[in-house]
Amino acid sequence: MTKKDVKELAIEQARENGGKLSVESKVAINNKEDLSIAYTPGVAAVSSAIADNKELAYELTTKKNTVAVISDGTAVLGLGDIGPEAAMPVMEGKAALFKRFANVDSVPIVLDTTDTEEIIQTVKMIAPTFGGINLEDISAPRCFEIERRLIEELDIPVFHDDQHGTAIVVLAAFYNALKLIEKDIEDVRVVVNGGGSAGLSITRKFLAAGVKHITVVDRFGIISESQSETLAPHHADIAKVTNRELREGTLEDALKGADVFVGVSAPGVLKPEWIKEMTEKPVIFAMANPTPEIFPDEAHEAGAYIVGTGRSDFPNQINNVLAFPGIFRGALDARARDITIDMQIAAAKGIASLVPAEELSTTNIIPDPFQEGVAKVVAKSVADAVND
Amino acid sequence: MTKKDVKELAIEQARENGGKLSVESKVAINNKEDLSIAYTPGVAAVSSAIADNKELAYELTTKKNTVAVISDGTAVLGLGDIGPEAAMPVMEGKAALFKRFANVDSVPIVLDTTDTEEIIQTVKMIAPTFGGINLEDISAPRCFEIERRLIEELDIPVFHDDQHGTAIVVLAAFYNALKLIEKDIEDVRVVVNGGGSAGLSITRKFLAAGVKHITVVDRFGIISESQSETLAPHHADIAKVTNRELREGTLEDALKGADVFVGVSAPGVLKPEWIKEMTEKPVIFAMANPTPEIFPDEAHEAGAYIVGTGRSDFPNQINNVLAFPGIFRGALDARARDITIDMQIAAAKGIASLVPAEELSTTNIIPDPFQEGVAKVVAKSVADAVND
Repeated sequence: MTKKDVKELAIEQARENGGKLSVESKVAINNKEDLSIAYTPGVAAVSSAIADNKELAYELTTKKNTVAVISDGTAVLGLGDIGPEAAMPVMEGKAALFKRFANVDSVPIVLDTTDTEEIIQTVKMIAPTFGGINLEDISAPRCFEIERRLIEELDIPVFHDDQHGTAIVVLAAFYNALKLIEKDIEDVRVVVNGGGSAGLSITRKFLAAGVKHITVVDRFGIISESQSETLAPHHADIAKVTNRELREGTLEDALKGADVFVGVSAPGVLKPEWIKEMTEKPVIFAMANPTPEIFPDEAHEAGAYIVGTGRSDFPNQINNVLAFPGIFRGALDARARDITIDMQIAAAKGIASLVPAEELSTTNIIPDPFQEGVAKVVAKSVADAVND
Repeated sequence: MTKKDVKELAIEQARENGGKLSVESKVAINNKEDLSIAYTPGVAAVSSAIADNKELAYELTTKKNTVAVISDGTAVLGLGDIGPEAAMPVMEGKAALFKRFANVDSVPIVLDTTDTEEIIQTVKMIAPTFGGINLEDISAPRCFEIERRLIEELDIPVFHDDQHGTAIVVLAAFYNALKLIEKDIEDVRVVVNGGGSAGLSITRKFLAAGVKHITVVDRFGIISESQSETLAPHHADIAKVTNRELREGTLEDALKGADVFVGVSAPGVLKPEWIKEMTEKPVIFAMANPTPEIFPDEAHEAGAYIVGTGRSDFPNQINNVLAFPGIFRGALDARARDITIDMQIAAAKGIASLVPAEELSTTNIIPDPFQEGVAKVVAKSVADAVND
């Protein structure tokens, strides 16, 4: 399929279907008796029961299985700030994936504001409807504050997939890569290129998973606590827990002796000659999309041992659809109040476990999204982490 | 079916299904190609198209067919202010009816606030998602301001069904009743008992339809402009356009010589002896639910010619399910910005037309909700009124 085909087919599909979702009744309403059960007067009994005990909303309403997919349309794919209406197709797609992979009902909600407080306020106002909130395509740094506040102020799980989804899947790939390069997690040196929301989330996830040596690089170079006075607050925070040797310099400097490159940055920014200065079996996750930091062939020629990208036409696709459906399935099943970092790491381990030892290879470190049972395994891992 | 059965069955149904709705994907996602069309990278083309021309949201997204059913849970059925979680089963039922009768996708949203400004603000924030807003079970007088402001400030139709749904259906019944009592609309005397949101909406609809003589009575008696200084603002407003003879007194006084009683008030408040003082062929719409202002048998004994109630176990059920699905279907089909009073009157005429002249009788003035094609006729009537 050429790119042009995909674009045309996508627009055709949207036009023919009038969007990708429908809301269906699970109950038959074919006569007055049906009506009296599904609507008045019968429904009064259901409402009264919940009025007496609010917890019953989780048994008697769609809240138990419904997640809102919420965006302000400010950071949509690579398209940037295109507004709520234009964000809708992405949110619908996301909702379709929630259903397809984990039987989670989800409702896209796009917002007519980009103001942090208004977004927080609006989500809080509509929250009683839902069992969970998936934030989507909200630009940094507002997304940090929005997520933090909603996690604090709501009693249902809130998850910003752009930050954590990719991070969880790349952590899963990293777990399997470690087996192949035969190194312990505490010993490897990781360089994260990209200081945006995904880069920082990856860094925190790797730290929580036990990585001791990790350095974040942005377009101005290595982020170091030694420059903390000139750093943005979210970079000053990450500087406190990364790059403990206080290195300074460029991405090239950071990569000397590194085991793992994790790119959530820009097309072509990783030079082959820098890979040669990494360790013996360099692991490259080049996730800029659609054009990665380096293409797999070129990376391998320069000595890369394992290469993963965001693309489906190369091996080792880091695809967040491996994570979010199962994560919310698990969180809803366990009635979790939050999606903690422990649950996220459990999800990564669950994803990694889906590649059996005998099939693990440098070109197969991550399962295919269509492999049977991915979301089920992830959900169980997540739910077990809640109940631990 | 006894009442106990209905209650038990309703709770059982809610528990077994986990609420009444599901969100389904209209597109197949079974392999990487499907994924690339329904989600990335294909979806970017759909988003870009809408970013270039926002109007395309009505062709390429679910906005074109999706209505939000919004409640703050303050006036739920006869249960009152039971909160958003407990309101959910009613909103789900409503959404199920939207789908069943008019193929409108609808999404319940219950709000964690009862503050007028917060409700208005929240609905405005989420509005880009939807093609229409159905307000539901929001208590008076806040519902007036909320509806008025949202109609003013949004470019999609906003409709408070509790105010207008019943009003439209009783107007339909009234149109057919006029044929049977053989009177002109300008000549009949109508008494509306109940000064709440439904009563006032009925009154305004009847006035717009051409009724010249109409009096509103609340529990303090006839509402008259002569007492306008002591009236609440919404009653002072209605006093200016009703009861032009400036009558004062009780419901009994108001009914002397009246042709039509419309009750949206309380159980048993209409005494048989008062019916005897109405005109020759009194028409009684006793819509307090489940116990009407007077039961049909008693009303007929007292001389009532036509009796309608809100109940499905008597003839002439005034059921708002006859109206709202077709009204939104028509408004969405016509891309209406508002649901004007003309569109509402057109809906009432459409409903009335569904009882063919040869089947019209005192016990058959209003169609059955399950009669084939009700929503289609209503939708066409409404859409035609937009395009007029």
